[in-house]
Amino acid sequence: MSNQNPVFIPGPTNIPDRLRLAMQVQTQDHRAPDFVEAFAPALEGVKKVFGSTEGQIVTFPSSGTGGWEAAITNTLSPGDKVLVARHGVFSHRWIDLCQRHNLDVHIIDCPWGTGAPADQFQSILAEDTAHEIRAVLVTHNETATGVRSDVGAIRAGIDAAGHPAMLMVDCVSSLASMPFEFDSWGVDIAVSGSQKGFMLATGMAILCVSPKALAAVDSARLTRTYFDFRDMMQANASGGFPYTPPLQLICGLKESLAMLFEEGLDNVYARHFRLAEGVRRAASAWDLSLVAQSPDLYSDTVSAIYVPDGFDSNALTDHAFNAYGVSFGIGLGQLNGKAFRIGHLGSLTDVMVLSGLATIEMAMVDLNYPIALGSGVAAAQEYFRENGSGRALAAA
Amino acid sequence: MSNQNPVFIPGPTNIPDRLRLAMQVQTQDHRAPDFVEAFAPALEGVKKVFGSTEGQIVTFPSSGTGGWEAAITNTLSPGDKVLVARHGVFSHRWIDLCQRHNLDVHIIDCPWGTGAPADQFQSILAEDTAHEIRAVLVTHNETATGVRSDVGAIRAGIDAAGHPAMLMVDCVSSLASMPFEFDSWGVDIAVSGSQKGFMLATGMAILCVSPKALAAVDSARLTRTYFDFRDMMQANASGGFPYTPPLQLICGLKESLAMLFEEGLDNVYARHFRLAEGVRRAASAWDLSLVAQSPDLYSDTVSAIYVPDGFDSNALTDHAFNAYGVSFGIGLGQLNGKAFRIGHLGSLTDVMVLSGLATIEMAMVDLNYPIALGSGVAAAQEYFRENGSGRALAAA
Amino acid sequence: MSNQNPVFIPGPTNIPDRLRLAMQVQTQDHRAPDFVEAFAPALEGVKKVFGSTEGQIVTFPSSGTGGWEAAITNTLSPGDKVLVARHGVFSHRWIDLCQRHNLDVHIIDCPWGTGAPADQFQSILAEDTAHEIRAVLVTHNETATGVRSDVGAIRAGIDAAGHPAMLMVDCVSSLASMPFEFDSWGVDIAVSGSQKGFMLATGMAILCVSPKALAAVDSARLTRTYFDFRDMMQANASGGFPYTPPLQLICGLKESLAMLFEEGLDNVYARHFRLAEGVRRAASAWDLSLVAQSPDLYSDTVSAIYVPDGFDSNALTDHAFNAYGVSFGIGLGQLNGKAFRIGHLGSLTDVMVLSGLATIEMAMVDLNYPIALGSGVAAAQEYFRENGSGRALAAA
Amino acid sequence: MSNQNPVFIPGPTNIPDRLRLAMQVQTQDHRAPDFVEAFAPALEGVKKVFGSTEGQIVTFPSSGTGGWEAAITNTLSPGDKVLVARHGVFSHRWIDLCQRHNLDVHIIDCPWGTGAPADQFQSILAEDTAHEIRAVLVTHNETATGVRSDVGAIRAGIDAAGHPAMLMVDCVSSLASMPFEFDSWGVDIAVSGSQKGFMLATGMAILCVSPKALAAVDSARLTRTYFDFRDMMQANASGGFPYTPPLQLICGLKESLAMLFEEGLDNVYARHFRLAEGVRRAASAWDLSLVAQSPDLYSDTVSAIYVPDGFDSNALTDHAFNAYGVSFGIGLGQLNGKAFRIGHLGSLTDVMVLSGLATIEMAMVDLNYPIALGSGVAAAQEYFRENGSGRALAAA
Repeated sequence: MSNQNPVFIPGPTNIPDRLRLAMQVQTQDHRAPDFVEAFAPALEGVKKVFGSTEGQIVTFPSSGTGGWEAAITNTLSPGDKVLVARHGVFSHRWIDLCQRHNLDVHIIDCPWGTGAPADQFQSILAEDTAHEIRAVLVTHNETATGVRSDVGAIRAGIDAAGHPAMLMVDCVSSLASMPFEFDSWGVDIAVSGSQKGFMLATGMAILCVSPKALAAVDSARLTRTYFDFRDMMQANASGGFPYTPPLQLICGLKESLAMLFEEGLDNVYARHFRLAEGVRRAASAWDLSLVAQSPDLYSDTVSAIYVPDGFDSNALTDHAFNAYGVSFGIGLGQLNGKAFRIGHLGSLTDVMVLSGLATIEMAMVDLNYPIALGSGVAAAQEYFRENGSGRALAAA
Repeated sequence: MSNQNPVFIPGPTNIPDRLRLAMQVQTQDHRAPDFVEAFAPALEGVKKVFGSTEGQIVTFPSSGTGGWEAAITNTLSPGDKVLVARHGVFSHRWIDLCQRHNLDVHIIDCPWGTGAPADQFQSILAEDTAHEIRAVLVTHNETATGVRSDVGAIRAGIDAAGHPAMLMVDCVSSLASMPFEFDSWGVDIAVSGSQKGFMLATGMAILCVSPKALAAVDSARLTRTYFDFRDMMQANASGGFPYTPPLQLICGLKESLAMLFEEGLDNVYARHFRLAEGVRRAASAWDLSLVAQSPDLYSDTVSAIYVPDGFDSNALTDHAFNAYGVSFGIGLGQLNGKAFRIGHLGSLTDVMVLSGLATIEMAMVDLNYPIALGSGVAAAQEYFRENGSGRALAAA
Repeated sequence: MSNQNPVFIPGPTNIPDRLRLAMQVQTQDHRAPDFVEAFAPALEGVKKVFGSTEGQIVTFPSSGTGGWEAAITNTLSPGDKVLVARHGVFSHRWIDLCQRHNLDVHIIDCPWGTGAPADQFQSILAEDTAHEIRAVLVTHNETATGVRSDVGAIRAGIDAAGHPAMLMVDCVSSLASMPFEFDSWGVDIAVSGSQKGFMLATGMAILCVSPKALAAVDSARLTRTYFDFRDMMQANASGGFPYTPPLQLICGLKESLAMLFEEGLDNVYARHFRLAEGVRRAASAWDLSLVAQSPDLYSDTVSAIYVPDGFDSNALTDHAFNAYGVSFGIGLGQLNGKAFRIGHLGSLTDVMVLSGLATIEMAMVDLNYPIALGSGVAAAQEYFRENGSGRALAAA
Repeated sequence: MSNQNPVFIPGPTNIPDRLRLAMQVQTQDHRAPDFVEAFAPALEGVKKVFGSTEGQIVTFPSSGTGGWEAAITNTLSPGDKVLVARHGVFSHRWIDLCQRHNLDVHIIDCPWGTGAPADQFQSILAEDTAHEIRAVLVTHNETATGVRSDVGAIRAGIDAAGHPAMLMVDCVSSLASMPFEFDSWGVDIAVSGSQKGFMLATGMAILCVSPKALAAVDSARLTRTYFDFRDMMQANASGGFPYTPPLQLICGLKESLAMLFEEGLDNVYARHFRLAEGVRRAASAWDLSLVAQSPDLYSDTVSAIYVPDGFDSNALTDHAFNAYGVSFGIGLGQLNGKAFRIGHLGSLTDVMVLSGLATIEMAMVDLNYPIALGSGVAAAQEYFRENGSGRALAAA
């Protein structure tokens, strides 16, 4: 009966019933008019979630990794220079993908727990007077460390450097849970997916592309067919798809957007902040440190928490799963064994978060962590009750 | 998003995904051979859950109340005398039903919080030398008070009195969650339903009937057609149904039994005891009293808990629902306003129970109850971790 | 893979996906405000389907048979006289139910294939100057014979006789598929269920009760508790239920009504007429006779069709099931072996009906019936294409 | 209510209830042991469907087009020469994909309606003494024309030419519906997907890769990351996935395999042949020609049928959809307007096929095609009943 418990991994997220039902559609003819009617409004809704009016939404049947590949192969050519910070597993993976596509990646290694360094980016770009750097790549929310980078500041740095580089942002684990401002941040390509803030099954990469990035597509010489923006955009324009569309996810996306807009994006963001803050209060009550080095960096979708010296975070997450049937995120990369992660995004309530905190407390005490049962729960309860849970807030 | 939280009402219970899917069957021809193949084994499995080898299982498309009506109308005649204790809303309702069917009900009013009095029953039966009392009716688990009566003791009393009365037991909210021993307790009719321990949707009354009770059917003169045992048994015998069967519930029942037997009935009972004990430890930590007057009476499926003097339990359950989206049981009858109830039966884990405890704690503190946040949770956590949750137990 | 084929039994009917999903709700607290919000509008919608503004809707968790029992036990007393025609299995069963409840049933035996005789009813009522007959019972749609009785004519006869008897109508297999006019036909109690025209799972009896019938409830002395109108109406009035409500069916009912009203009741009726007429054209092409003796009696929800002399209809339906995985209705009662039935009600399209006709043709030819493959299909195709199928009609 | 009708497009196919339910799983932790337990056996089962014991199964969250891209990018380098026949839209698209990845594509244009020319391939390969041709690409089942190519003959030709080229086969619309013999045909990479013979939602490319093809991966210089065999195989080997896995499809695949093996692959193939032959008999009765030029080329999953001169096949498929709510495949590429397609693969019964034939007949007569209603249906009925439908066959 373990699947009765929520998961606390930072995605894929718990799928609400409403979306599971929406995705349970029978096959329909994707060349029939009905398909268009479902798909076009979904793309419009997604654009709103990205915070864009000028962007072009492009989706692919793939995971978010496919979205990264689409972003670079549609706009860059072999040997092109890109600028990226490496401060977690996901920024590392994007770098690796760029290198495998023969890009010239200028990597800034930052301590894990910090964000992408807007000032360093600015200096480097300012020095690049030949404008050889074609793109700056940023992981908005480093899922490995629970760090949110300041995309707006990075844009400001690019502009201050007077540099024409495109700004590409991975917002897979932040979009639809934390505020995202594609237009006002001057993002050129943002990459997300179906299985996090959209609360759907895995299988759809969701991108927003600026006019400037679109202008780069025809001259980009990295090879691509499956992930070619042009085929997808051309087919979508007439209500079609260049190959068989993921109908179930498209129907789910339509309903997901309805849920998000019914709750109100601002309320969705406020809920995620509240849930995250509750988790952070619990960590503080346990006297454990977040990997994220300062409050301005705290992610509202995932918290990476260091275990005390001498303890193994893998043993902790294994035990929570084996003894209590609850999944937490393990420490990834250099954090493996040193930190565990609590995902608190998607379809989650204060009540569900408390069950996660209560569980990890039991697991910690079972393993002789120096923490008191109920202490983290009480800290989160106190925060939740003073800061208005869902229904009370809605009624206010 | 409130439907992401579990309910903590004492039934209908949270339906596990596996059973929701099992009940989602398309219409099939109930006169076709497939139907028989699903139905007959389900009846056998149910018998096992009742703890019977000699009983006859009879089901009706109705709530448990219909099961009560079936029990009496099939075995009794107008004016027949029955003996019942009234110690909660549900025993009261069964009494009312008997009276409306023109039975002569000998009511023993007992304090709410106590169980059916085996000794008083014995005395009364011993005095009934004319054997005018045709049946003794017992509510195994009084859902209003969280009291479990000792059916075996009542049977012992009947036998000690040398009385031939039938023993009818309402086990709607206990069966498949707490041990039930139809045969060894000498029960003549036990009445349950689909929506509690079987974790299904509401809509099926499930009865077990002893050979002795069956022998009384033909001479019983209370009117019935829909609930007539004979029509149902005769139709079932050849794989049929006297009217349209509730196919979805029958398919669900088959799968519910599979789940129960996979976990093992003893493990199911142990889990319910553990969950209940966790709730009781929490109540104790809050310094609140159970309605059930002594440990031997504690129900493992529902705990009724008094609020402190000067507090209104309805305000508490309303607030928990409105502020946190979680449903608890209200106080019923004379307990209305004075007690709330935590249902802890069916498809429930330790982790889910902790979320309920954490929620009611927040609601209590919001309403200025003199309790400390996290205190009840910690008490339950301590009990759960020392007494082995599900998976750990299974692995042991 | 047989469950991919539609069933052609006259109920329970094929459940459309939309309703299967609507019924797949997780448990909610039926004492919470949400429940009221779902239930009250559903009752209003049902009233519209009955064609009533003055009636009171009462539902019970039971099959339609329970609805029959509710109708008589709430309005009649032991020994009361009722007038009924017996012209099929379902009118017979209702008679039996009345007799088992100690009513004095005046039975008019009519040939199977004819309807309830309005003129005979009128004569008998006219002769009953003492007004001893308390109710006239009519099976609107005899599912065994595929005969629709003229309820309006029966009301006219009652009125012409100046008789105060209540008019009770079984419309289980007609409501929401064929026109029903509760108010203008002067019906006092109409009994239906969830599993036919409402296209839901079995498990809810649905009644409409006139003010006149309601006025009879308090003095009615037949025993009932589960099926007592008063408990249900009183609880419903404040948004409650006297026992655990069938939440899944209530949610399904709300969605079913949405589907019916979106299509438009007149379009629903027109579709059923068209489907039925297609089946009748096929029967005619096969040179087989309907059991219903004249066109004014033809049911639009089920056609009972005689097999030729020397053939066994049970062998035919068995073979269709075993060889092709399709369920048809068997001949019931005196028609067993002599007729088979094609159910064409609920969620059914012209295309689905053609698959049923094609199947039974194959089965007939397999068993050496003197019919030509494709002949019935062609007759139905011709009718369907000339009389506008669903979408074309909708677009018109 | 149109979604009650089956679709007759050649994929995505009608999804059986059992698989829709299997895909409706709640999120689970894909790093937990349960995931491995579901995934590993599914890969083994898929291998069996491919007819392979030596092949390596690799899947990607993508459509089949992604599978094509994976096949070439993992084994070839820019400028490599490949040999392909172009005889339909899907072979054309694969060619286009190769060209966009800078391969040197040797195209043999063949008449649409013919298969890939084993003899021509042999000659060309024999002349390629320098063995510059790195791969022969074959579309096993050209979905646009309803043509099955003889993969075994092509392998024989390659071998006869003594040529080391790899043999890559697109079996998207044939696998799990028509026999496929990966090992005995000497296939090096076969590409399929979830949404055809596996009867699942769209979203998973499924490939089988020979040891010889695997040996080419490290030296292949076409760029890829998302579709890199190595990342996927390495992660799969330890029960993982290089990025978020499509859990719903993986669970669905496990159940799809169970269904296929329960029916028996040989029975699955026999059923598809029977259904296809029924359609072909109908076309013959209508006096319409198949696009496939000879019986040895007939596909058992899709039939492309020429409309008579002077008729527009698009008007026909539009009308069938608008008037009857049934989707058929349109003519693609040079066949647009000239032919329509009936998909008859996946979860389909004889009864369902008859409903499709009956529908297209009505549509044709509506548009004044010179055909008789019921004629095609009768031809298919005759074939089906003489050649044993599903259940009868199973019982034999």
